[in-house]
Amino acid sequence: MSDETVKYLLPENRIPKSWYNIVADLPQMPEPVLHPGTKQPVGPADLEPLFPMAIIEQEVATERDIEIPEPVRDVYKQWRPAPLYRARRLEKALGTTAKIFYKYEGVSPSGSHKPNTSVAQAFYNKEAGIKKLTTETGAGQWGCSLAFAASLFGLEVDVYMVKVSYGQKPYRRALMETYGARCVASPSTETNAGRKILEEDPENRGSLGIAISEAVELAAQRDDTKYALGSVLNHVLLHQTVIGIEAMEQMEMADADADVVIGCAGGGSNFGGIAFPYIGRNLREGKNTRIVAVEPAACPTLTRGTFAYDFGDTAQLTPLTKMHTLGASFMPPGFHAGGLRYHGMSPLVSHCKELGLMDAVSYNQVECFSAAVQFAQAEGIVPAPESSHAVKAAIAEALDAKEKGEERTILFCLSGHGHFDMQAYTDFFEGKLEDKTYDEALLQEALSKLPNVG
Amino acid sequence: MSDETVKYLLPENRIPKSWYNIVADLPQMPEPVLHPGTKQPVGPADLEPLFPMAIIEQEVATERDIEIPEPVRDVYKQWRPAPLYRARRLEKALGTTAKIFYKYEGVSPSGSHKPNTSVAQAFYNKEAGIKKLTTETGAGQWGCSLAFAASLFGLEVDVYMVKVSYGQKPYRRALMETYGARCVASPSTETNAGRKILEEDPENRGSLGIAISEAVELAAQRDDTKYALGSVLNHVLLHQTVIGIEAMEQMEMADADADVVIGCAGGGSNFGGIAFPYIGRNLREGKNTRIVAVEPAACPTLTRGTFAYDFGDTAQLTPLTKMHTLGASFMPPGFHAGGLRYHGMSPLVSHCKELGLMDAVSYNQVECFSAAVQFAQAEGIVPAPESSHAVKAAIAEALDAKEKGEERTILFCLSGHGHFDMQAYTDFFEGKLEDKTYDEALLQEALSKLPNVG
Repeated sequence: MSDETVKYLLPENRIPKSWYNIVADLPQMPEPVLHPGTKQPVGPADLEPLFPMAIIEQEVATERDIEIPEPVRDVYKQWRPAPLYRARRLEKALGTTAKIFYKYEGVSPSGSHKPNTSVAQAFYNKEAGIKKLTTETGAGQWGCSLAFAASLFGLEVDVYMVKVSYGQKPYRRALMETYGARCVASPSTETNAGRKILEEDPENRGSLGIAISEAVELAAQRDDTKYALGSVLNHVLLHQTVIGIEAMEQMEMADADADVVIGCAGGGSNFGGIAFPYIGRNLREGKNTRIVAVEPAACPTLTRGTFAYDFGDTAQLTPLTKMHTLGASFMPPGFHAGGLRYHGMSPLVSHCKELGLMDAVSYNQVECFSAAVQFAQAEGIVPAPESSHAVKAAIAEALDAKEKGEERTILFCLSGHGHFDMQAYTDFFEGKLEDKTYDEALLQEALSKLPNVG
Repeated sequence: MSDETVKYLLPENRIPKSWYNIVADLPQMPEPVLHPGTKQPVGPADLEPLFPMAIIEQEVATERDIEIPEPVRDVYKQWRPAPLYRARRLEKALGTTAKIFYKYEGVSPSGSHKPNTSVAQAFYNKEAGIKKLTTETGAGQWGCSLAFAASLFGLEVDVYMVKVSYGQKPYRRALMETYGARCVASPSTETNAGRKILEEDPENRGSLGIAISEAVELAAQRDDTKYALGSVLNHVLLHQTVIGIEAMEQMEMADADADVVIGCAGGGSNFGGIAFPYIGRNLREGKNTRIVAVEPAACPTLTRGTFAYDFGDTAQLTPLTKMHTLGASFMPPGFHAGGLRYHGMSPLVSHCKELGLMDAVSYNQVECFSAAVQFAQAEGIVPAPESSHAVKAAIAEALDAKEKGEERTILFCLSGHGHFDMQAYTDFFEGKLEDKTYDEALLQEALSKLPNVG
């Protein structure tokens, strides 16, 4: 009849007590963050207009284990520890010799891994006496997750949502508003950055880079307001390591160990979350677990970008970080995995890639949706378009193992469910979904505009 | 800082081994089901065109505990035992002296309690050699849940979806199709029932009663095809009792006992699921736990309907059951809790109401959405519009306890999340949501057409 459901669930007291900081184990420190004006390394004071000191300290921390405050663990309890499943039905459908495990982060109230960091950020800001957070969001997963966390800690939130998504994803917007956040289409007339862009191009449909500029500009102006980012930065990836820490313990429960660990990568947060504890174990214990980041072929930061200093935003308000980038002025084509549509990549993930500690692959969206449908019919969970990239890579690994007659243990992060993304599935079924190609000339132009540093 | 998250999670081996059959404890048997033609009590053979024998046996079973087959418990493992939460943050927001607990069924892959029965129904049909299931769906929760279960057991599914919802809820339809089901707008030209209605009224926008007629008609025609219903019938409510059985054990973990148990009621399935184990305990142990069904004021089956024999569908193809009904030809006004928009009520729930074993209240949709937003901002979970009725009633109980200075322990079933229903929240925020009133003349006309039995 049905094949066995195999779920590994940790008890509540196994929610990690510390986040894992990969910097402590790296053979070489990442390059420093530079001030956008002076191009000299930033100090904590430079970041204070944007973040509370506790978060700045985490951004530059070098100790391996960083304690998770009790009030944060307490909120985590609502959905953590998140389940780890063995995909027995999918294995059977593929006829593979491989074992496939997935860590499911869609059990959070906003349906993705993002609350792992939004709860921590809301907590530290509340502790610092902050009243309001500003942020940007693309497809809306991050905006919803910050709005959720802020509602629990009694903080106001203004979300600058990429205008094209604001129109296309009214339901994510409604979720933010349900949590009490204010959602503004970006570019807006509320900021200098937004007004400047609208003057030049009243029809501008926005980008993550523009929305970041707006959110950063407003946070910097007020003492009671700070900025929150949902990916890319060190402290964000730090908070996400609960994914990998739990998964490693659950794999032990399953009496298995991963040969390959897979995560989709946009800014790098769920990828870093599942991968960093495994990269750290490789480094400390001389293990050889393969680590694979999966990105969209239409926005291939790790596989086609340059490793260089760049801005995180369009208006060049953010500090400069050394990362894989397609150039801050690069505009990726529209595709459904909005959470992977960013020109840059986490500096820590980029650094690991440069050090040869991980691989990266890219896939087109049609093959990813096809994999997601196969997964849903076997496992019952509908992946978010972002997560479908990890699903595709896991299936490719399983089929490769089958072809080679190898046993192989595959672990991937299913970072969120697709209940808010069913239009994408509708397009897929109606044959309207097309693979998108970035504009090579645009990429070269964006890369030629990278800031000249050092 | 944040108030404590209190979650009670049972280990996997505490998934119930049996469903609870309330018939065993009732002081009086419910009235028999009648054949639509002869108006004589039906026997198993009369139901065979629609259901496999294992389900027919459950429909008429009188023993208290009915074993859950291992393959069904195995699929339940994917999300069960479902969590029970204490709503500490909501209690604080209300300033109430009451304790509020909620059993959360939105953790299933389709986001509601419906898979508790769809998995069982898919299993029994597969065991009986059935190839295809037909069913109806309104807002789509049931259709998605049956499609999910059928995909795991390798059954085909044809879902007749109320035409107005088919247009308004394309994302639920996309979810059904992702699970491999075929979704047809009802009334359709695929059935005699559908064609007849379209001939009389080509613009007919459908109803649950019509969609049931279509699904039943097709199932009855083919030996390899059976019909599956998502609510109302005894076996469906039986399967849902895992909700209440688990909740009762979790309340013991919390060292608490419910003074009042609340569920929203459309056809009665999540309500019966949480309430029947408590009604049974009242009967067996002489306890006095209050049981409250909550229905929409615009479709007030229990509070304004007649207790009489009626058809479950419009074309009068179903057997006659004695239940609270607004009349099979009654057309409720459009409101957002599509899952509560049905003219009838579970015969078992109706019987309990007639025996004085439970109460019923009704609320309008605007006050329910207002309660749902307050709940989401305190507890982080966005309720489905149907579930918002239970939330509203729980808040009303908590405020009543506060006014009276009473300690009171409230348990309610949060039957699903609202991630597919954000248009309703958008309408609420934009002030477009209005309370709907049913047409009293229409109700009287529908009641006057009740079949003349005995």
